[in-house]
Amino acid sequence: MTISTRLANWASEISSAHTPKAREAAKQAILDVVGCMVAGAGDSGAAKVREAFKNMGVGYSVVCGSFRKAPAPYAALANGMAAHALDFDDTFMEAVTHASASLVPALFALGDELDVRGDTIIDAYIVGLEIHGALGLALNRSHYDQGWHSTATLGVIGTAAACARVMGLDQVRFAHALNLAFSSAAGTKVQFGSMAKPLHAGLAAKNAIEAAKLAAAGVEGRANAFEGPMGLMELYGGSNPPGWDAAFEKFGGKLAIERQGLTVKRFPCCAATHRAVDAVLDLMKKHGFEASNVEHVDTWLNAGHVKNLRYLSPETEFEARFSMQYCVAVALLSGTITLSDFTPIAVQRQEVKKLCKKISITPHEISGTGASEIGSIRSMVRIALKDGRILEGQSHTPKGDAANPLNNDEREAKFLDCCLGFLPHSHIDRLKTQIVSLDSAGSIRHCTRLLRFEAGADQGQRFEQRA
Amino acid sequence: MTISTRLANWASEISSAHTPKAREAAKQAILDVVGCMVAGAGDSGAAKVREAFKNMGVGYSVVCGSFRKAPAPYAALANGMAAHALDFDDTFMEAVTHASASLVPALFALGDELDVRGDTIIDAYIVGLEIHGALGLALNRSHYDQGWHSTATLGVIGTAAACARVMGLDQVRFAHALNLAFSSAAGTKVQFGSMAKPLHAGLAAKNAIEAAKLAAAGVEGRANAFEGPMGLMELYGGSNPPGWDAAFEKFGGKLAIERQGLTVKRFPCCAATHRAVDAVLDLMKKHGFEASNVEHVDTWLNAGHVKNLRYLSPETEFEARFSMQYCVAVALLSGTITLSDFTPIAVQRQEVKKLCKKISITPHEISGTGASEIGSIRSMVRIALKDGRILEGQSHTPKGDAANPLNNDEREAKFLDCCLGFLPHSHIDRLKTQIVSLDSAGSIRHCTRLLRFEAGADQGQRFEQRA
Repeated sequence: MTISTRLANWASEISSAHTPKAREAAKQAILDVVGCMVAGAGDSGAAKVREAFKNMGVGYSVVCGSFRKAPAPYAALANGMAAHALDFDDTFMEAVTHASASLVPALFALGDELDVRGDTIIDAYIVGLEIHGALGLALNRSHYDQGWHSTATLGVIGTAAACARVMGLDQVRFAHALNLAFSSAAGTKVQFGSMAKPLHAGLAAKNAIEAAKLAAAGVEGRANAFEGPMGLMELYGGSNPPGWDAAFEKFGGKLAIERQGLTVKRFPCCAATHRAVDAVLDLMKKHGFEASNVEHVDTWLNAGHVKNLRYLSPETEFEARFSMQYCVAVALLSGTITLSDFTPIAVQRQEVKKLCKKISITPHEISGTGASEIGSIRSMVRIALKDGRILEGQSHTPKGDAANPLNNDEREAKFLDCCLGFLPHSHIDRLKTQIVSLDSAGSIRHCTRLLRFEAGADQGQRFEQRA
Repeated sequence: MTISTRLANWASEISSAHTPKAREAAKQAILDVVGCMVAGAGDSGAAKVREAFKNMGVGYSVVCGSFRKAPAPYAALANGMAAHALDFDDTFMEAVTHASASLVPALFALGDELDVRGDTIIDAYIVGLEIHGALGLALNRSHYDQGWHSTATLGVIGTAAACARVMGLDQVRFAHALNLAFSSAAGTKVQFGSMAKPLHAGLAAKNAIEAAKLAAAGVEGRANAFEGPMGLMELYGGSNPPGWDAAFEKFGGKLAIERQGLTVKRFPCCAATHRAVDAVLDLMKKHGFEASNVEHVDTWLNAGHVKNLRYLSPETEFEARFSMQYCVAVALLSGTITLSDFTPIAVQRQEVKKLCKKISITPHEISGTGASEIGSIRSMVRIALKDGRILEGQSHTPKGDAANPLNNDEREAKFLDCCLGFLPHSHIDRLKTQIVSLDSAGSIRHCTRLLRFEAGADQGQRFEQRA
């Protein structure tokens, strides 16, 4: 039996009676990424994507941040771009993908077109995430480290599984949906730092719908496209992939959404800053000092993460998202970091700029070969206060990881931060209610129609107005 | 200056006053691939692709083989699939791509939408082919040999250049069209032998239009996407690519369409059979024997080509296209090979099956390391006749190559063979006239509207009816 057949047989046949824990986790993930999508709809890149396909025919699928509808693939493209635009959406570490940013836009767009029930979306999200995970376990980190942007490459296949599940494809056509999605597995990390990075999440969502539609009509790829010569593993596996056995070790047991879960971002900035910011906030809470008391802050983190954080003194909101100095300074001044900290005006605040100069970032040494993986990912901070105290802290697991999750209030606060300025309070409450009761929703359209609003291209004005 | 910027600057600025030779070659290529598209529209896989997106919104672009119109990307997808479905379309050896099968469907679909002039299509075809060539010179054969299906991977970028040219993008946006097309550079040779192979030509056409539209709206990729770390050359270059200098050695001089030209297929079967079939037909012409006089035929060819020809005794038309035995047998019996030889009924002809058993295929040895490239591609045949004569022949350059081109009658005969059964004679004449006078066509729509007919999914019935 080929790899895609094994995956498709499982994904087309598994009962939709998932555990309450899995369903709850799926709804939380959907709520989180919908918030990111609403906020991201105001991104200028997302607005350009909507503009590019505004005349691309009549469709049934809501384009978040506009009053238009579009054919499902183009709605999925625009919404996937929006979901990932601010780098605030979740990460699925088992696949090293921003899985929700392709899954949810694809499922909402296809669900709109086919007018499916809310619980169908939850089920398809869980199944699609599982296929993301299986591919990730087989290929990563080798695949990612070679330079592939797995959100795009593995994401399109995992998301095609979710679409095939919604469409109820039989085993044979389901496998071809996966094989054909492989023929859209493109997107490399050279695009990081450009609009093409969030675009990749949208392309994965769009191409996944197209692959499922092609397979549903009877178009067929090669059954052994994943493991065959010149196939997925051979050309995309990198130098030392774990291999297919690793994909199937856990397959059919506890679901990925339960065993691994998703890492939800607490702050709208590069994940590499999150552990250090957590440690700084913990020290502030414990020792009760303020930014004005800070003499100096040193941070140490994993060398790979340091590479992501190149901007010591950021001049734009895009640079600020990838600046440890900026994020720690804002955390010290505000006690948190929110979307309103990433606007052209916010990054020019003199008190933030002044504080940035007092913050250092250094890769930490891993001594010997015995360093555990957790040790290598840990971040440490040392804060020197003007009163002479030296405070030290560290963090292994960022707040927002499934092992250290946001509580209900924190999740709702994030959702509110994302939606404010785009939607009125009453509208935000209705949207949240629709998503948390998605199990019993007669149609996904009750939810998606709440995403119709005019976002324009936001340059931070909504925060200035709000303040 | 980055690679994509160099390519884009040239492609956005070159004068459209190409030489008459270049324009004539472009029109010949368009005529050839339009014929293939008409014939391929009857392929069952092409019909399924049309079916998959039949409800994908209202559009302005003709879907060949139907009376519907679709948004340009989906028309390009369906028509690209049709153009390559029968493996009868041309090859552009400088890029190792079926360039016309993505260029012409994309340009016709986009041209329909924007209602452009015929000479705009010719110009964009020439410019797009040049970018195909530059990428091919930089990466191939290393890229192709690693397993990438260049028609899909390089094809989408070259075809995006053609689309950007039609849309008149400025230098900056033109470069981003190329960079964003790279984020759709997928498709590997594991898919050969399935419907996904011709689908790749359609995907390249569709994704090229989408990349150009995204760039036109201001979406941007990374300027160094081709040469940067984890970019096109690094991840797709294979073990030993020639490199970017090779791309620019010839750039800006004589156009690729003049210096290399296209290899047009004389027969609707694997190109690996063509040299041997040419040699057999030459011997028949020279020595005046008939199939009934043949005792045995031996063929020797390049080892890589032998691998493509796995079917000694084909049972389906798909297998027959990749069978040296079948193709030589048909050539001996009919003096040519036409589309009507690839139907379920035709492959069951007892006289063909009987003759197949008398034909051998063997890889020829390349002695030492000094064998020239031409020597390694050469095919040789030896025919033993019942009257005791032993005839020997060989071919280096297949009939249809730019160095050994089809004459006007042969090209028209191929076009007719492709169109008959789908279009009435009068209609075929009008289509041909439109294409050969494309320079002066006020609108490409005069041409594309002639591609509206109901193809259904042909299983060979049109040939049975015609016979």
